[in-house]
Amino acid sequence: LISDAVVRKLEDIVGSENVSTSPTDLHVYSYDASIAHATPDVIVWPQTTEQVSQIMKLAYEEEIPVTPRGAGSCLSGGPLPLKGGISITMTKMTRILDLNPNRLQVSVEPGVVVDRLNEYLQPHGLFYPINPASSSIATIGGCVGEDAGPLRGVKYGTTKNWVLGLEVVLPNGKVIHVGSKTFKHVAGYDLVRLMVGSEGTLGIFTKINLRLAPIPEAVAVASAFFDSADAAGKGVRDAILSGVDPSGIELMERAVVEAASKHAGLKLPQAEFLILYEIAGSKESIEPRVRKLTKVLKEAGATAVDVAYEAEERARLWKARKAAFPALSRLRPTCIMEDVAVPIDNVGKLLEALRSLAKKHDVMVATFGHAGDGDLHPTITTDERDEEEMKRVAAFRADMYKAVVDLEGTITGEHGVGITKKPYLKLQFREDEIEVMRSIKRAIDPKNILNPGKII
Amino acid sequence: LISDAVVRKLEDIVGSENVSTSPTDLHVYSYDASIAHATPDVIVWPQTTEQVSQIMKLAYEEEIPVTPRGAGSCLSGGPLPLKGGISITMTKMTRILDLNPNRLQVSVEPGVVVDRLNEYLQPHGLFYPINPASSSIATIGGCVGEDAGPLRGVKYGTTKNWVLGLEVVLPNGKVIHVGSKTFKHVAGYDLVRLMVGSEGTLGIFTKINLRLAPIPEAVAVASAFFDSADAAGKGVRDAILSGVDPSGIELMERAVVEAASKHAGLKLPQAEFLILYEIAGSKESIEPRVRKLTKVLKEAGATAVDVAYEAEERARLWKARKAAFPALSRLRPTCIMEDVAVPIDNVGKLLEALRSLAKKHDVMVATFGHAGDGDLHPTITTDERDEEEMKRVAAFRADMYKAVVDLEGTITGEHGVGITKKPYLKLQFREDEIEVMRSIKRAIDPKNILNPGKII
Repeated sequence: LISDAVVRKLEDIVGSENVSTSPTDLHVYSYDASIAHATPDVIVWPQTTEQVSQIMKLAYEEEIPVTPRGAGSCLSGGPLPLKGGISITMTKMTRILDLNPNRLQVSVEPGVVVDRLNEYLQPHGLFYPINPASSSIATIGGCVGEDAGPLRGVKYGTTKNWVLGLEVVLPNGKVIHVGSKTFKHVAGYDLVRLMVGSEGTLGIFTKINLRLAPIPEAVAVASAFFDSADAAGKGVRDAILSGVDPSGIELMERAVVEAASKHAGLKLPQAEFLILYEIAGSKESIEPRVRKLTKVLKEAGATAVDVAYEAEERARLWKARKAAFPALSRLRPTCIMEDVAVPIDNVGKLLEALRSLAKKHDVMVATFGHAGDGDLHPTITTDERDEEEMKRVAAFRADMYKAVVDLEGTITGEHGVGITKKPYLKLQFREDEIEVMRSIKRAIDPKNILNPGKII
Repeated sequence: LISDAVVRKLEDIVGSENVSTSPTDLHVYSYDASIAHATPDVIVWPQTTEQVSQIMKLAYEEEIPVTPRGAGSCLSGGPLPLKGGISITMTKMTRILDLNPNRLQVSVEPGVVVDRLNEYLQPHGLFYPINPASSSIATIGGCVGEDAGPLRGVKYGTTKNWVLGLEVVLPNGKVIHVGSKTFKHVAGYDLVRLMVGSEGTLGIFTKINLRLAPIPEAVAVASAFFDSADAAGKGVRDAILSGVDPSGIELMERAVVEAASKHAGLKLPQAEFLILYEIAGSKESIEPRVRKLTKVLKEAGATAVDVAYEAEERARLWKARKAAFPALSRLRPTCIMEDVAVPIDNVGKLLEALRSLAKKHDVMVATFGHAGDGDLHPTITTDERDEEEMKRVAAFRADMYKAVVDLEGTITGEHGVGITKKPYLKLQFREDEIEVMRSIKRAIDPKNILNPGKII
């Protein structure tokens, strides 16, 4: 697909050390954290906006597909170049450009890793609240592309609530700046929120201006244990309705707790459903809120509630939660982490549906996730080489999406449509709605060169 | 522009009692709360989605401009039909359709007035946090069209943070549903946030699904007094940085306090700058947070800080704040309420710039607004009939927008571009950026019949 002449031109733009067509590299860059794969023809690592612009101008001229990529921790195949072409990898644009604590803003390049940003911010008493479980490797650019959700979504929402402005290279190579350095603005259409979550199909982000939050004065994490899906669902819903204002509500079912505890070398109490609640804010508010939360959870059916006030003990719980995916992914050869969301009053029903569908299709499913956002990650452990089992997995997935839509939910809460969910988008939206999305794609990328074949 | 045959067809669609071409009605509907005006050829009041769809199909066929309108409290000329045609007025679609307290969601028709919704929600312990100062008349549909901001923006953001889903009638009359009933979703492009704030140029909203919040357990309002713009600016910035988590920070300068107190029949202490801080949350958290806030404000230079804990006293303060615009609008024949925003560390500089520019151009300007969002409403009282004075007003406005952009701000924080700011959009965005907005408009409204001539 790509001529030697084009490769030479790419080398002229970024330097030959930042271009690769080696079979090993192409193989590595044909994967992300999903089970999809697609191989690029060439990988480039730009280091400046100008280089990205020149790459896009070349690609536009030659009509070569370009697919942006961050750390490759995407779970929906977003960075995989379905039509081949150029994999434009942003991991060498890693500068933190401009921290302004007095306006709670920082500007970063897309390759900055989330945890690294938070380490940088910590001495200033600030943090970037959108920490996906993969925050030790995920890049901000990737998070923006997918509208990543954090472990604290109940309070802080998703990436799009925290991106104030973007420098974007358009498919034709033009560089635009969207958004504002103010906390709110309504000057023209909201191009920021159109770009956030566009999965690399509308533009390539070269600078990202983020809003920050002051680190809360005090934090506690309550662990509550539930025997049934119904009670766990109530424990999620009632905690939110109670007004105790949790920042995050994270759930793990028994199989996840077992795997994660073992993986992380931790001892965690076992229960059918373990739910972690983060309560943060002014020092004086913590204990009364935890007390009220405990009461609410016991009324919802919690068999026990433990509270961790110390940093070390809280870190232990989050370590277990963050270990969920890596731990499960080691149980069997293939691990498919799903991502579906429902309204918060349907979390219990979703947990029940997942268990009954897993049984029906004889598939191993372990569920965890951001229950307070109604967003769960049913994670299938299986073996890609077993055709018969993969058929059952496919049937389970199709039934699950239907169940989720019946529960007024979405086929993806935060991982994106990408490759893996494209066939199911029509369960959630009708043709007229998808056609509006397509018309926007055509308007911004008329030659369909940016991440072609994705979403719509 | 509109033939009798078209008027007959409109009457067939909505009933003759819901169509008007009377000169008096047309005159009334040629105004909003800005000083712009533009007269429609016919007004229709639809009552169902189906009627809106049929009206749009007719308009699409005949290429007649259609401009949606709510209560007409818009401050940028949004609902004014620049090209004539049909004024589609949503004030007869006033049903609250579906309250679901267990998932913190309510579905409403666009004509529901904000205060009415909150009265309806109050017995359920819930509220819709986005209360613009005009909440006693403003409709939810208008708020969605303009992405209205509340008196509590520091904590709750703007309308777009609270709209989960929309039923939208497209320019061609097709009815689509965008968004999700979940708190988060990334299935396809974010059409909800593209529609919110699109000022009636992309679609007409016929149903709006809103997220709600539990009413906080306790609230206090601190009033702080400052002698200088610089100190007031610090009082805004430091309150936010302190982490005491105010829900709203509202500022009024002396002339505003004087006018509003008189208008509302209230006695308020006089100061160069009065800033109100709302602190809400768990009962136990209030006093310590107020104590910390008071300390921070005194360090920032507040000459005094009073705190209102009782509902009646708090209501008195908000009544004064809400009276700001009506009070100022009675001072002189013409009142132009502006709307500009800057990063929170530039609020003091913006206050200074406004005072010095008012002096330079010899214009009466009284400033109030959502200082915690960096969003201020410099309000010009003048006389439209005085040509010479209006020239000075125009010069002041042009200088103000330049100053705001120099302070890294936006020409509109929440009122929209509409008619009144369209000439200034290019101060903030370059042609390439505006062209992306235009391409989206063309994609969704190829015949340019929805609110033509606005924004871009």
